[in-house]
Amino acid sequence: MCRSKQRMRWDMRRCFLDSPIGSLHAVQDKLTLMIPGPTPVPESVLKAMGRHPIGHRSGEFQAVVQRTTEQLKWLHQTQGDVLVITGSGTAAMEAGIINTLSRGDKVLCGDNGKFGERWVKVARAYGLEVEVIQAEWGQPLDTEAFRLALEADSAKAIKAVILTHSETSTGVINDLETIARHVKAHGTALTIADCVTSLGATDVPMDAWGVDVVASGSQKGYMLPPGLSFVAMGERAWQAYERSDLPKFYLDLGPYRKTATKNSNPFTPAVNLYFGLEAALEMMQNEGLEAIFARHARHRSAAQAGMKAIGLPLFAAEGHGSPAITAVAPDGIDAEQLRKAVKERYDILLAGGQDHLKGKVFRIGHLGYVCDRDVLTAVSAIEATLQSLGLHSGNMGAGVAAAATALS
Amino acid sequence: MCRSKQRMRWDMRRCFLDSPIGSLHAVQDKLTLMIPGPTPVPESVLKAMGRHPIGHRSGEFQAVVQRTTEQLKWLHQTQGDVLVITGSGTAAMEAGIINTLSRGDKVLCGDNGKFGERWVKVARAYGLEVEVIQAEWGQPLDTEAFRLALEADSAKAIKAVILTHSETSTGVINDLETIARHVKAHGTALTIADCVTSLGATDVPMDAWGVDVVASGSQKGYMLPPGLSFVAMGERAWQAYERSDLPKFYLDLGPYRKTATKNSNPFTPAVNLYFGLEAALEMMQNEGLEAIFARHARHRSAAQAGMKAIGLPLFAAEGHGSPAITAVAPDGIDAEQLRKAVKERYDILLAGGQDHLKGKVFRIGHLGYVCDRDVLTAVSAIEATLQSLGLHSGNMGAGVAAAATALS
Repeated sequence: MCRSKQRMRWDMRRCFLDSPIGSLHAVQDKLTLMIPGPTPVPESVLKAMGRHPIGHRSGEFQAVVQRTTEQLKWLHQTQGDVLVITGSGTAAMEAGIINTLSRGDKVLCGDNGKFGERWVKVARAYGLEVEVIQAEWGQPLDTEAFRLALEADSAKAIKAVILTHSETSTGVINDLETIARHVKAHGTALTIADCVTSLGATDVPMDAWGVDVVASGSQKGYMLPPGLSFVAMGERAWQAYERSDLPKFYLDLGPYRKTATKNSNPFTPAVNLYFGLEAALEMMQNEGLEAIFARHARHRSAAQAGMKAIGLPLFAAEGHGSPAITAVAPDGIDAEQLRKAVKERYDILLAGGQDHLKGKVFRIGHLGYVCDRDVLTAVSAIEATLQSLGLHSGNMGAGVAAAATALS
Repeated sequence: MCRSKQRMRWDMRRCFLDSPIGSLHAVQDKLTLMIPGPTPVPESVLKAMGRHPIGHRSGEFQAVVQRTTEQLKWLHQTQGDVLVITGSGTAAMEAGIINTLSRGDKVLCGDNGKFGERWVKVARAYGLEVEVIQAEWGQPLDTEAFRLALEADSAKAIKAVILTHSETSTGVINDLETIARHVKAHGTALTIADCVTSLGATDVPMDAWGVDVVASGSQKGYMLPPGLSFVAMGERAWQAYERSDLPKFYLDLGPYRKTATKNSNPFTPAVNLYFGLEAALEMMQNEGLEAIFARHARHRSAAQAGMKAIGLPLFAAEGHGSPAITAVAPDGIDAEQLRKAVKERYDILLAGGQDHLKGKVFRIGHLGYVCDRDVLTAVSAIEATLQSLGLHSGNMGAGVAAAATALS
């Protein structure tokens, strides 16, 4: 009796919660994700993930780990280690910080958005001394400020420079290459980079640039659902690991490195996401790094051109837009209202503004498994929605025309 | 040219690595998992996981979080919080420890297997003072030793008692109920329990028993692939959280609790595993807790009876076998040889012995999505394999007969 009542309650609740698909305009399961994560996942990757799990200590799974490890090195353009953690990008970034630094260490932290801010918080949570190099949200980090701070550090007190490559909250790409060069000139500091929305979208040759730690997450350029994150560690990072005294266990990368030599993991990994990872990385290898980067650059151009032609100002400073995400600051228009209307009418999910940008900014994600059609569609839908809201002030169709030109 | 060459290389490697399915006896994808995790996953759960991801800040996803939160409370029999972390069971257990304790705190740690050992390591990694109550592998923790240690602590120096409920490495179930009662009598210490292979297999009424922190993982009784872990926190645990000074960020449960009130998560969660979680917990609710526990108890009886009838001694002390896993110590037989032969001939994956038990013990997992047929089959396969290896010393069929009797 009791059980069937309970079941009825669940069924009713489900009915109630599920019935509004989104709006009268939408049909079920026709959602297009254009947020900076989770990004769309290819059908073949979903299928790979959908098989029954296998033992994570089996030879068959070791073969998966071996293949993905090689694929991950290819993606990171590194001879170093790329370790897989079950967790979010934040877990990977925290791992990069706590495995290379010690209590009281001084670090230089770039902060020009929500994620830069987050690494300042992580560093402080572990008792590091943080010098922050800040830029306004929407502006790139000033590479000269890093050069000057590093040059002034003759005592070599700065142990690491921590920064976000593509700042997801503002759609700004920071000049990691130049900053890493300044860090190299310093001689002893490490470069620890959040490449969560840059890896797989633009060139991040970590060995060539001398970036010591690169953190990333599966629901981004990898074209996977969320759940896996990745920390790439170069040789200098491992030397720092030996000295590091910050407490850690699940995120202690030593056991990850040790078990990786046997194509294994220290803790039970997300086996099904690994299946998807292998399939997604194989797709990426088939497309090739240069083609992937060109595609993301093309989509950035199209999104930017489309928004400009509609008369919607870009939020990121000119020339510093991320290839993964275009943030738009529609002057005099409630960005949340527009974003919600695009979702209701066309079932395209755009991202909103974070923190103080809520209502002022919306963001178009063009990261990962995104094709030209998706970007064209997003621009059209934004344009059409503006029109139906009576907010389109220019020539209707100008956005799509500009985007199409940029794509061709 | 280069790309197609590369592709060929990958295809060849895949061919090479995939071709031996396991043995000449096996057919592809006919594996039966009888390890203590990953456990088998129902088809409907795989299907739920196989849909396209949605935005983790969307209303639709919030509805999933809301439903699973209620389901998780039902499973834990608690009015407290159950928080979902993307990570392994170790991450959940570490979170339980570092969110309730402070540097230098004294803890009492039960250690009668690999996982008990692990919590000692975690506690020490964070600078806690650890008093270990040890038992031989295969023996249960002595509840009286806990009572005496707690009673002797008139200064109330012991801040927590940390133990494993079902010790996966040895197949022993510890008497969590009694130990938690002794902790309650102490008055100020917390009980932090690893219920990774007990939750969803046997009764863990955390509120009724006064257990303050319960950690678990998705690839166990939950019938899900690995990737999610769970920390249940009672009110006393949250009071301790306020005082805790151990450094943490990704595993800081404060933000998880705060976002949970809005049916959300502090970091991007493993969206697709959440879909599976909802489906799996719904299946569990339909079956009902009592029926689930009875099924696991029945499978323990059948596995134990089968092994005894074949003449294979159990590893766990009589009366202390876990309902999730039966460890077998086949006297004079190489347990790894037997385990591998069962895998090769019948494509049933049993677990091996860990650390010093390697080769001496094999373990039958009967946890999660396991039916009577699976247990009967495992016993038959072990019996048949022993016969074909010339190692069956009793009446062929005795094991299956005993198991069948126990199941009926």
